[in-house]
Amino acid sequence: MTGTHAGTSASRPRLYIQEVAPRDGFQNEKQFIETEDKIAFINRLSASGYAKIEATSFTSPKAIPALRDAEIVMHEIERNPDVVYTVLVPNVRGAQRALECKVDEVNLVMSVSETHNRANLRMTREQSFEQLSDVVNAVRGSRVAINVSLSTVFGCPMEGDINAFEVFELVGRFAALGVDGVTLCDTTGMAYPTQVGKIGREVRKLFPALTTTMHFHNTRGMALANTLTAIEAGIDRFDASLGGLGGCPYAPGASGNVCTEELVHMLELMGYDTGVDLDAILGVSATLPALVGHDIPSQLLKAGPRLTLHPAPDSGA
Amino acid sequence: MTGTHAGTSASRPRLYIQEVAPRDGFQNEKQFIETEDKIAFINRLSASGYAKIEATSFTSPKAIPALRDAEIVMHEIERNPDVVYTVLVPNVRGAQRALECKVDEVNLVMSVSETHNRANLRMTREQSFEQLSDVVNAVRGSRVAINVSLSTVFGCPMEGDINAFEVFELVGRFAALGVDGVTLCDTTGMAYPTQVGKIGREVRKLFPALTTTMHFHNTRGMALANTLTAIEAGIDRFDASLGGLGGCPYAPGASGNVCTEELVHMLELMGYDTGVDLDAILGVSATLPALVGHDIPSQLLKAGPRLTLHPAPDSGA
Repeated sequence: MTGTHAGTSASRPRLYIQEVAPRDGFQNEKQFIETEDKIAFINRLSASGYAKIEATSFTSPKAIPALRDAEIVMHEIERNPDVVYTVLVPNVRGAQRALECKVDEVNLVMSVSETHNRANLRMTREQSFEQLSDVVNAVRGSRVAINVSLSTVFGCPMEGDINAFEVFELVGRFAALGVDGVTLCDTTGMAYPTQVGKIGREVRKLFPALTTTMHFHNTRGMALANTLTAIEAGIDRFDASLGGLGGCPYAPGASGNVCTEELVHMLELMGYDTGVDLDAILGVSATLPALVGHDIPSQLLKAGPRLTLHPAPDSGA
Repeated sequence: MTGTHAGTSASRPRLYIQEVAPRDGFQNEKQFIETEDKIAFINRLSASGYAKIEATSFTSPKAIPALRDAEIVMHEIERNPDVVYTVLVPNVRGAQRALECKVDEVNLVMSVSETHNRANLRMTREQSFEQLSDVVNAVRGSRVAINVSLSTVFGCPMEGDINAFEVFELVGRFAALGVDGVTLCDTTGMAYPTQVGKIGREVRKLFPALTTTMHFHNTRGMALANTLTAIEAGIDRFDASLGGLGGCPYAPGASGNVCTEELVHMLELMGYDTGVDLDAILGVSATLPALVGHDIPSQLLKAGPRLTLHPAPDSGA
């Protein structure tokens, strides 16, 4: 562990970090990541203190060839019993594949925005809800947990602002189906701090039994600021992507997912216990440029943790 | 103005944005920015609603050739009476040059860290304080305001943590000399939110008569998060650099100054009145890559303000 801790584990408020790079990051890479590299990558993450790792996606290999090795990955990784291994599942067929691989959780996705849902999933929201209800019915009763990730909660790149009541209504419909958790996703970095506080507080108030995760993107630089107001609103779970992997499809060159090491670095400095070993994940992040074949958005990887010291120049220099 | 305002000007709390790109940004550029380009750049900034613009530096042209045209710039820009034009001044000679140019404010700089002060200014802190005291004595009594920018307030890249009491003591010594304002600078992006809140609150409490500015760097991604806790601590003035111009000398490729357009974008969304016209400064920021000859760190310039909408893909596509 790095020397960034502000207190002992016992006294520090606990936050839970969920790594999405193996799914949300690798899915967006043009270059196929070799299966053995994915497995080694996830194994290193498994030893780094995460609460949850989104390991892969059980979608059609034609739709997402980057993750066509979902079964092999899930069978060959070394599971850490302290880590929840979740996978993205779009339909009942995907859920069956996931259950056969003994995943800990399935993660279902749809959008709060009708336009975004049609663009991204090629269905109406009602069609998506129906399809996901079938998945919930197929999985409920097993030991596998069910999480629903809602896209465009804080704004849609095509529709603009999203009515928060539509968010609450959709969360409520999934809560009524008996899902365990919901993730509020800022799909294209439109969330801002006061908005996050309001929506976070309301969801906690309306659905106290649901495990609620925030999934921020740093597209406009606000991901860490949004995290602060989410914590104030009572949220204690955050998705993040190592190295900031996973871009923004609407803004070439702009960053996407909040960078895990930057999130952990800030939260540990503030005295939170994230469980994550910052030095360990920085070591893994350092392998990413070679793995994906390009530079990655992580600023912390370039600068190092705040107490990375530099030699003073020679006197007189 | 963009459609990001959450309320009317009358009801929104006022924050003050101070642009440092013409000095702190251009100073770090290897390629000389032509004098007429600097003047045109500052003129556009002057019409964009800033409280203050740091226009140039009256240092030795040998030490900082990038700003060797300080006199011409100050004489030829069109002054907006609502904008305070401040300039960096290292010594009495610089102050005399600045006064001849009828600047509104001189900005003096030294470091709280002995090692950083020696490395950056080639003097001990005591020598710097003495030299700056001479400047204060030379300027005090004129109509020109005096601000002191303290480097490495939140950490030193060579010493590590800085004792906050040394910060308060140094602020107190300048306050006793009669300066008008102090800027607490996070020179290499080591500040973190809880630390900013503590130091901000203490400085406001100890020196309520001093105009206090926060100067954040985004080197480790925390600049906007730090801004939130600074505001909670009662700080209402922020330095920022258009496009995020001005790098971090200790981390090649890492970002430096917080990006003005990202700061303004977030604050206006949160309902603050920054005075700054976001559309106007985004237009100016868009000219920077050509002006400086390289890509700039601004994420917002790439992604656009949050309500920048994108067409939905063709149905069936």
